Amino acid sequence: MNAADHKQIVTVDVVLLTLREGRLAVGLVARENPPFKAQMALIGGYVRSAEDDSAEATATRVLREKTGLEGFFLEQLATFSGPDRDPRGWSVSIAYLALTPWSRLGGPVSRDARLKVVPVEALPDLPFDHGQILAAALERLRGKGAYSTLPAGLIDEPFTLTELQKVYEVALGQPRLDKSSFRRKLTELNLVEPVGARRTDTGGRQAQLYRLKSGVGVFDRRI
Amino acid sequence: MNAADHKQIVTVDVVLLTLREGRLAVGLVARENPPFKAQMALIGGYVRSAEDDSAEATATRVLREKTGLEGFFLEQLATFSGPDRDPRGWSVSIAYLALTPWSRLGGPVSRDARLKVVPVEALPDLPFDHGQILAAALERLRGKGAYSTLPAGLIDEPFTLTELQKVYEVALGQPRLDKSSFRRKLTELNLVEPVGARRTDTGGRQAQLYRLKSGVGVFDRRI
Repeated sequence: MNAADHKQIVTVDVVLLTLREGRLAVGLVARENPPFKAQMALIGGYVRSAEDDSAEATATRVLREKTGLEGFFLEQLATFSGPDRDPRGWSVSIAYLALTPWSRLGGPVSRDARLKVVPVEALPDLPFDHGQILAAALERLRGKGAYSTLPAGLIDEPFTLTELQKVYEVALGQPRLDKSSFRRKLTELNLVEPVGARRTDTGGRQAQLYRLKSGVGVFDRRI
Repeated sequence: MNAADHKQIVTVDVVLLTLREGRLAVGLVARENPPFKAQMALIGGYVRSAEDDSAEATATRVLREKTGLEGFFLEQLATFSGPDRDPRGWSVSIAYLALTPWSRLGGPVSRDARLKVVPVEALPDLPFDHGQILAAALERLRGKGAYSTLPAGLIDEPFTLTELQKVYEVALGQPRLDKSSFRRKLTELNLVEPVGARRTDTGGRQAQLYRLKSGVGVFDRRI
């Protein structure tokens, strides 16, 4: 047998997560082609071997095609495979997790009616094994959140520490993190730095504003 | 374009790690076919869509074919892809990490001259991007070791806590872990239980023997 006998369908699927009105939400697109034509699904597409230098390049390309944007925080999640996950035959999906503040998505969403940003608790049934892929993305976000900088990919800069804590609470699914433990963890992660300005918070106090330090942890990998 | 136009070469590569004479070592096989025929490489092979239910099933099969064994601790590592990693064309390798005590490999290694277990510090140049795949496996073992049960997959049962600490030291690349911190971490991980027997250790003392608790952490996934 030669290599041609060992080829399989290879796609990339991206779980694009954001925080919309305080809720974790995922970017979905209506499928343009069969199978599952017109059904809402994760952002994805075939690897194009003539164009894409890697599966990560495919992820960047499909994100650009569906959102008009680049520069999301992106990391490989896991690869899903088998004979039954796609009616077209034995297939591989290399899945990625992308994170973005909602502010970046607001514009493109209104320009391209095919992209919908749907709260995770209000999802429609997803085709293929996209439900499993999404579950793996949420597990990564939650698991890593306990010790990583990942949830910070969901916030706009600059932010107050109270705002950042809310993002972690939503991302981790833990509604009430202890404030002093959270601040200690932030110090350990060496994640943020003051921007040298303040904003009046909802309680009327002046709260210090912060940004993410450049090159921190998972943010090394920007697309 | 239809699905057939979007097929790529899909292989699985397994980084089989063990601890041989106190050194971290990896299982390599001489390649039977071109490219790189006769060169030592990671254990791997094509996905066979008629036989394999998933890439994990491919990993199990190639491990069985090369070692004669099943039941390794196995987890997906990452997927490597692109136009240049394999001279046969654009390709995907779904990489897995497998861990085993050396005692399980001793027999098969002598039966099958093609499998060599080589210390990580004494590796030959590896073909394809197998060097990168191995580096990712070591990073996973070391990174996870800090908070996981992964390195315990390398030890024979029963063991003394001193023996287990040595395994962690080699796996993490940290030659002198503090004994009391290590024991505290073990308690937090809830990883081991006494077997109710003792062994005379090298210092002439009677040391309590332990085994891994069933169903602990990463060991949920056995093949």
